[in-house]
Amino acid sequence: MENVKVIIWGLGAMGSGMAEMLLKKKGVEIVGVVGRGKKLGTSMYDYLSVERGDRPDVLIGAYDEVITEKAADVVLLCTDSFTKNAFEKIKFCLEKKINVISSAEEMAYPKAQEPELTKEMDRIAKENGVTVLGTGINPGLMMDLLVIALTGACEEVEHLTARRVNSLSPFGPAVMEEQGIGLTVEAFNKGVEEGTLAGHVGFAESVNMIADAIGWKLSDKVKQTMEPIVTSVHRKSPYAEVQPGDVAGCAMKGYGYVDGELKIEMDHPQQIEPELEGVHTGDYIIIKGTPNINMAINPEVPGGIGTIAMCVNMIPHVINARPGLKTMIDLPVPRAIMGDMRDLIER
Amino acid sequence: MENVKVIIWGLGAMGSGMAEMLLKKKGVEIVGVVGRGKKLGTSMYDYLSVERGDRPDVLIGAYDEVITEKAADVVLLCTDSFTKNAFEKIKFCLEKKINVISSAEEMAYPKAQEPELTKEMDRIAKENGVTVLGTGINPGLMMDLLVIALTGACEEVEHLTARRVNSLSPFGPAVMEEQGIGLTVEAFNKGVEEGTLAGHVGFAESVNMIADAIGWKLSDKVKQTMEPIVTSVHRKSPYAEVQPGDVAGCAMKGYGYVDGELKIEMDHPQQIEPELEGVHTGDYIIIKGTPNINMAINPEVPGGIGTIAMCVNMIPHVINARPGLKTMIDLPVPRAIMGDMRDLIER
Ligand SMILES: NC(=O)c1ccc[n+]([C@@H]2O[C@H](COP(=O)([O-])OP(=O)(O)OC[C@H]3O[C@@H](n4cnc5c(N)ncnc54)[C@H](OP(=O)(O)O)[C@@H]3O)[C@@H](O)[C@H]2O)c1
Ligand SMILES: NC(=O)c1ccc[n+]([C@@H]2O[C@H](COP(=O)([O-])OP(=O)(O)OC[C@H]3O[C@@H](n4cnc5c(N)ncnc54)[C@H](OP(=O)(O)O)[C@@H]3O)[C@@H](O)[C@H]2O)c1
Repeated sequence: MENVKVIIWGLGAMGSGMAEMLLKKKGVEIVGVVGRGKKLGTSMYDYLSVERGDRPDVLIGAYDEVITEKAADVVLLCTDSFTKNAFEKIKFCLEKKINVISSAEEMAYPKAQEPELTKEMDRIAKENGVTVLGTGINPGLMMDLLVIALTGACEEVEHLTARRVNSLSPFGPAVMEEQGIGLTVEAFNKGVEEGTLAGHVGFAESVNMIADAIGWKLSDKVKQTMEPIVTSVHRKSPYAEVQPGDVAGCAMKGYGYVDGELKIEMDHPQQIEPELEGVHTGDYIIIKGTPNINMAINPEVPGGIGTIAMCVNMIPHVINARPGLKTMIDLPVPRAIMGDMRDLIER
Repeated sequence: MENVKVIIWGLGAMGSGMAEMLLKKKGVEIVGVVGRGKKLGTSMYDYLSVERGDRPDVLIGAYDEVITEKAADVVLLCTDSFTKNAFEKIKFCLEKKINVISSAEEMAYPKAQEPELTKEMDRIAKENGVTVLGTGINPGLMMDLLVIALTGACEEVEHLTARRVNSLSPFGPAVMEEQGIGLTVEAFNKGVEEGTLAGHVGFAESVNMIADAIGWKLSDKVKQTMEPIVTSVHRKSPYAEVQPGDVAGCAMKGYGYVDGELKIEMDHPQQIEPELEGVHTGDYIIIKGTPNINMAINPEVPGGIGTIAMCVNMIPHVINARPGLKTMIDLPVPRAIMGDMRDLIER
């Protein structure tokens, strides 16, 4: 049987990590990589500093050269956070009859913010007999799918809290900027007011995914707040340095209401070097219901590796799925792939 | 749209709990209950001491009277632990073109111990256009499906441990006897030797489910051990009383090997009143891999409610599934049902 064929669109932190992961797996090969600007024409192996061995070379190319009809089984699209920006790229792939897995946060549950584009993607996917899925660590697993899976052991659910306390230290300059790390409190608050600080993208997606999965009808739009995490000590990470009194992190909260009552709470403080002020990182799920369930994962599941793994690990499920737009609640549970990927494909 | 129609076969602790849970849910109704002996002819409502309200009565009947062609969408079969004992009952339901959810431990992954019967059930289910699933809290979720779902965030997995430290205090006389609670150490060891103590049923199922899901090929049969938990204090629960020096619990371990190397460990000590000797109950998952993941749920997810919920909550997934024998790794993640069950059925 032929290898599973993958194209990666966007060789940033996530796309590069997925490429490296795929190169270690059996029964799957990278047949194309889409980049832009200076990267074009470079060998993927040189770009990643990975030994090519006796594999054929893969040159980074423009999207319309690399993505031709049925050129691969799946495109891993790692370029965007927002559905409206990813939409044309997804459409392009689907129309070439190739399945798509997107790491865009909003694509984890696109219906939450882009119901029209969602219908459109579903229609195009079905017309072309392929599937599109959005996934990642969060949204995608820690603050939504895992919460949902644990409610499977519940007769009744009254209230749900998902808390993710994580370290931003490993992340690069783009993340530092989006989260306002190193700013004065004044500048941070101005950024919040003017909408220039992105913070975490995904609460609307996670809350809507949970509500739809367990059958709660949200009565209000998902609310969210964003507060600076002000440090009292000097903190330094590879890409940021923060003075006491300034902003070492961004604490976001999200709220889902059913009949006007608060039923789903998201709590996601992100900062560099949390240990310096005694903050223990972790993922927490608290279910009030029959029974109550209290889950903790310490430290948190790392966001980078986690997202890389989720996107790659969902490849067989997406290839096997019926055509259309799917979300994590439509497909079988994610799982690591330690064997030959071809063994997982239903023919 | 019509209500989802359910028949319950076996009104013991699990079947009764499922009936009570279903009676609180929307869009679903119990259309029949199968019992035997003295229960026959009794009203299910009287048997459960639940108000009938304006619902039509449901009398406990013999299986061949209650289970007629397409009499329901699904039978919840709560009579057995072993596939070979459940098999004829499952066959009977499938041939009446009704889906089946079984709480039998071995049915959670029947291929592990009964490959021939598994093929047979799959064939019969497909011939009749219906689905059969085994599920429960353990096997079914805590020591297998949840482990698998967390590996979804892993690039590589080196070793897996699932530990479930639970209290047996809520359980009845049958469980006390199966686990050897109250015996002397000598009598316990004799029971282990002679195979009269059942202990936990499910390690072969959980280990095989995990291995198949992530693509590890087991090189040996799943090994298991069973040790008495000897108490140093007097312990008393509703259905048992244990003197110091005697057996308050049963500690089982299970081992899965890949290429002769220990890769999957199951650790499941069960006892009455664990707190009396400072044992904190909980479910624990430890993944050694990229990344490492350490999960804890404290206290443990209760086995009774958990199994009742899992069986009921999987009803829509089983009705929607393609025909055949399915396991938890084939279907979408379990989830609580807080809305109308009919909204979850794909027509
Ligand atoms: N759901 C989750 O849990 C989760 C987790 C992590 C990341 N994400 C999201 O996934 C996306 C990727 O993350 P990242 O960390 O890899 O970001 P990144 O390091 O900024 O990488 C993005 C890459 O996409 C490339 N790109 C963008 N538009 C392109 C286009 N039209 N054609 C070709 N290449 C294009 C960029 O190329 P240039 O360098 O040429 O600009 C860059 O290499 C982000 O939006 C991030 O927010 C989601
Ligand atoms: N996977 C898991 O996590 C999990 C968890 C809990 C339980 N289980 C398993 O699920 C099964 C049910 O558990 P339980 O606690 O409900 O056991 P239980 O209280 O002993 O109930 C079993 C019931 O089935 C009835 N029954 C047995 N054979 C029958 C037949 N041929 N026709 C009609 N009724 C029949 C029994 O009736 P009589 O009273 O007339 O004998 C009894 O009411 C057990 O085998 C248990 O080990 C699995």
